[in-house]
Amino acid sequence: MEKIRIESRKNERVKAYKKLSESAAERAKSGRFTAEGARLCADAAESGIRIERVFYTERALEKYGPYLEKIFQKAEIAYEISEPVAQLMSEVRASQEIFCVLSRESLPEPGALSQNGFYIAAERMQDPSNLGALFRTAEALGISGVILSKDSCDRFSPKALRASMGAVFRLPVWEAEDLPESIRAFGKAGFRTFAAVPDRGAKSVLKCNFAPGSIAVIGNEGAGLTAEASEACETRVTIPMRGRAESLNASAAAMILMWEMMRSPEVE
Amino acid sequence: MEKIRIESRKNERVKAYKKLSESAAERAKSGRFTAEGARLCADAAESGIRIERVFYTERALEKYGPYLEKIFQKAEIAYEISEPVAQLMSEVRASQEIFCVLSRESLPEPGALSQNGFYIAAERMQDPSNLGALFRTAEALGISGVILSKDSCDRFSPKALRASMGAVFRLPVWEAEDLPESIRAFGKAGFRTFAAVPDRGAKSVLKCNFAPGSIAVIGNEGAGLTAEASEACETRVTIPMRGRAESLNASAAAMILMWEMMRSPEVE
Repeated sequence: MEKIRIESRKNERVKAYKKLSESAAERAKSGRFTAEGARLCADAAESGIRIERVFYTERALEKYGPYLEKIFQKAEIAYEISEPVAQLMSEVRASQEIFCVLSRESLPEPGALSQNGFYIAAERMQDPSNLGALFRTAEALGISGVILSKDSCDRFSPKALRASMGAVFRLPVWEAEDLPESIRAFGKAGFRTFAAVPDRGAKSVLKCNFAPGSIAVIGNEGAGLTAEASEACETRVTIPMRGRAESLNASAAAMILMWEMMRSPEVE
Repeated sequence: MEKIRIESRKNERVKAYKKLSESAAERAKSGRFTAEGARLCADAAESGIRIERVFYTERALEKYGPYLEKIFQKAEIAYEISEPVAQLMSEVRASQEIFCVLSRESLPEPGALSQNGFYIAAERMQDPSNLGALFRTAEALGISGVILSKDSCDRFSPKALRASMGAVFRLPVWEAEDLPESIRAFGKAGFRTFAAVPDRGAKSVLKCNFAPGSIAVIGNEGAGLTAEASEACETRVTIPMRGRAESLNASAAAMILMWEMMRSPEVE
């Protein structure tokens, strides 16, 4: 691994990092994305993500040596940067002064959905922190993968990546150009599809049989599922509420739905 | 109801509102707190909270008339304010230009815990948005009340109130000077007490019998429960995880715990 020292905030590599971290379009075009922080970058290394570059300060080397070692083992080039450069690159208040440029190509290819799997599909999620949190919870609960409508926000944005605690590196993801169309196709292929709706007339989540091969579809925070996506599903499902109507937010509903899928007696 | 017009950003009432909205100490000293937004303020009126003052712009009156009517019915004094004054008072990006000063004294007295109830106790919650979200979910799921350690953040802060969607107005709250001591006292009084811990050796939440008269105790985002609070409980309980260890966050764990309490076959 090459090691190079950067002192200038105007360095081309630094500018390219910054652009990548700030622009979803740049990430899409280049097939690269960024990660910041000792734990998240080491997590990328351990998850088998290709690390094209790592940037770190001397201070980070002293403080986060064991993390950086893992990163150095996988990184193609390492740049030691000055603290002012790190400050410029950082997205967070208390930076750990470790930054990576990662390659999307090295993420596992999702392949086909498994008939034994449990999946969550999200339509038009707009908040990167909510999307990241969804990945984190999905991974923790053992969900097999995530289906995202094309108009969802970018899961490779710094906020989404951070909120996911690295789950974005590992969970298989399918991007659906036309989500209702994909849902219908999964239904035809034998998957059970469930639309999460805040409708008291829908089937209670407690009465659903989430057998292996189930897909739960959730909408976004503000508008919920579109009628088209909801109708594409086999079953409309709702969380029974005892308090005031509509007071469970979309993330909370998604979490309970994932929990109920994984809690089904047929799992394990 | 009196109506008064305020044009000056230096008006004493405006300054007093601002101070109340910004300072937890001022809220504690005065027994008052603030709320902003058409829906939240109307919610306060409907929940029987004493509205000492309402401030609104002409624009708000046009746009949110039905909400303001509910507020006017309960408010003791109404101030029509100019838009620059509203801008100064606002805590949010797109203000609805409706602001209330509310009285804590009018909140329902919590009384004694019910032996038929299900309760959540939170230790040292520091993030007002997380605390508010906890209230919102607790209310939606039908939790009977919330026990908060004295060193938790202020549930009457603008952020907590907003995230709670008004649940802070309605859910009974007990403040515990010494939470472990209170837990032990509840245990002696016949309540079942459960400490949420991310410890794979603890009892699975799926194997717990959450009979009526149960209290689930959760810790804060960063540090989790203190050993003292955990040991004060009868049972240590954990969410079985299938993914990487420790990857479910505290809010997610609290939500699943509340859901499991309310999902128990004995409820309803």
